[in-house]
Amino acid sequence: MHPILTVGSVAFDSIKTPFGEASRVVGGAATYFSIAASFFTDVRLVAVVGDDFTEEQTQVFSGRRIDLTGLQRVPGETFRWKGEYSFDFNTRDTIYTHLNVFDQFRPVLPESYRPTPFVFLANIHPTLQSEVLDQVHEPRFVAADTMNFWIEGTPDELRKVLGRVDALVINDEEARELSGEANLVKAARAIQRMGPELLIIKRGEYGVLMTRDRGFFAAPAMPLEEVSDPTGAGDTFAGGFMGYLASAGEMTDTVVTRAIIAGSALASFAVEDFGLERLLRLTPDELQDRLAEFKRLTHFEAL
Amino acid sequence: MHPILTVGSVAFDSIKTPFGEASRVVGGAATYFSIAASFFTDVRLVAVVGDDFTEEQTQVFSGRRIDLTGLQRVPGETFRWKGEYSFDFNTRDTIYTHLNVFDQFRPVLPESYRPTPFVFLANIHPTLQSEVLDQVHEPRFVAADTMNFWIEGTPDELRKVLGRVDALVINDEEARELSGEANLVKAARAIQRMGPELLIIKRGEYGVLMTRDRGFFAAPAMPLEEVSDPTGAGDTFAGGFMGYLASAGEMTDTVVTRAIIAGSALASFAVEDFGLERLLRLTPDELQDRLAEFKRLTHFEAL
Repeated sequence: MHPILTVGSVAFDSIKTPFGEASRVVGGAATYFSIAASFFTDVRLVAVVGDDFTEEQTQVFSGRRIDLTGLQRVPGETFRWKGEYSFDFNTRDTIYTHLNVFDQFRPVLPESYRPTPFVFLANIHPTLQSEVLDQVHEPRFVAADTMNFWIEGTPDELRKVLGRVDALVINDEEARELSGEANLVKAARAIQRMGPELLIIKRGEYGVLMTRDRGFFAAPAMPLEEVSDPTGAGDTFAGGFMGYLASAGEMTDTVVTRAIIAGSALASFAVEDFGLERLLRLTPDELQDRLAEFKRLTHFEAL
Repeated sequence: MHPILTVGSVAFDSIKTPFGEASRVVGGAATYFSIAASFFTDVRLVAVVGDDFTEEQTQVFSGRRIDLTGLQRVPGETFRWKGEYSFDFNTRDTIYTHLNVFDQFRPVLPESYRPTPFVFLANIHPTLQSEVLDQVHEPRFVAADTMNFWIEGTPDELRKVLGRVDALVINDEEARELSGEANLVKAARAIQRMGPELLIIKRGEYGVLMTRDRGFFAAPAMPLEEVSDPTGAGDTFAGGFMGYLASAGEMTDTVVTRAIIAGSALASFAVEDFGLERLLRLTPDELQDRLAEFKRLTHFEAL
């Protein structure tokens, strides 16, 4: 079992869906990632919050295998984001993004974090992603996320990061934009040529597609009767995926495909309630049951 | 092994995609269905063509296990349809639909067809679907397709058919419209209450979702580097699914999930070339290889 280091946002989210609202709840990519990954291994968090982030709010991390030594607390307000989902959850409008203390954030790794073998660079400025990698001693496996904003706005900086990562975890729209290919197979091969040997394409309610030596591995999302809030599902997936990989410690086909299912299972819980709520009350037994459900969802006997 | 009876359109299709055009090629739901199903079992076709449908065009059915006794040939023009796909194949505009001889079509089953145990009612007027069922002697398993046009235009007639079928094979948009539910799990349960015990939801490039006693079975579509023409993919899927079921002759969970994969594999070939071209040159060995690829695409070891 190996620890994971992650860098990304810890934020206050305000969320509006067809079924309800949540205001100023703890969120952020690194938060979802850390809580998900901590079901499988030790997590070292690198992020920044303002002095409005209280001790009570820090409780979301407590009682878990999450090291907060790298969580900077600085004067000012914490990163804030507000999003609103359409009636069928298929589109999301960002109402506002206030970077606040994140605007001046420079990741500084505590000395104890430097030898971490597994690294996840959540969706932040690619230059910050590079700065984190510069500080890690010979990481064994590095994965990153990104978004259209960086693909369009900082393509050169992003390309530099891509040349240094083993895996990229992005959604289908981002894969198409990054590669300039509408066809996902061609998009995947084009992105692999940019650096990441492993590409994982998140397709929301349709699940995940992962590249392999030959062909792909595809995992559906669990069909759910109640979807309350998709916020953080992608980061939760990444956390489960990387957490499982780091806990297994080897990168065989068996381990990597299982890691995809581990991420999918955690993501399927994340959307069942607002914000972090469902993940915070998730038990290992519930997780184990859902992993079995995924097997049942997809298994057939060879023809 | 049991034979299958199908009723639906045999047509001339004109197709425009971002990568090419095909004009007045043989198509139609019952055509794709029959050719796909004939890879697994004997098919009995019920349809109508005009006197412009030549002997040469009938060759698409020849050399296959397809009985054309029920293919009526009447004076007039064959059903014609023209469709155009968007750059990413995600939308399709119908340029025209000329029913022609299909407008006055009344399905009449040859006596030899009446005892067919497996029946597939392709997407035609629900009253015609009912008329076919009236003529089959105690069918063992009946599946049907439909579309938004009938869901909106002839809801009462459609409900009568739904009360008589074992399985409904529709796409996700149709499932949402038929049920009035945006959530697919709720949509599926609502449609099951209308009659069909089994609901199969086609999701195009994302694959297929099938209801089960508890939960669902999900099969991804095969990621393909070249998609030439999605026309007929859904009917090809239905043909492979029903053909496999009828050839197995029992309805266990193992058989039904394998049938979903058989349909998915055939559909993955159908889209690789224009119209029927790829299916017409498909060999049993190629099909067997792709069935194995599907296992590899989805298999993981239980966690």
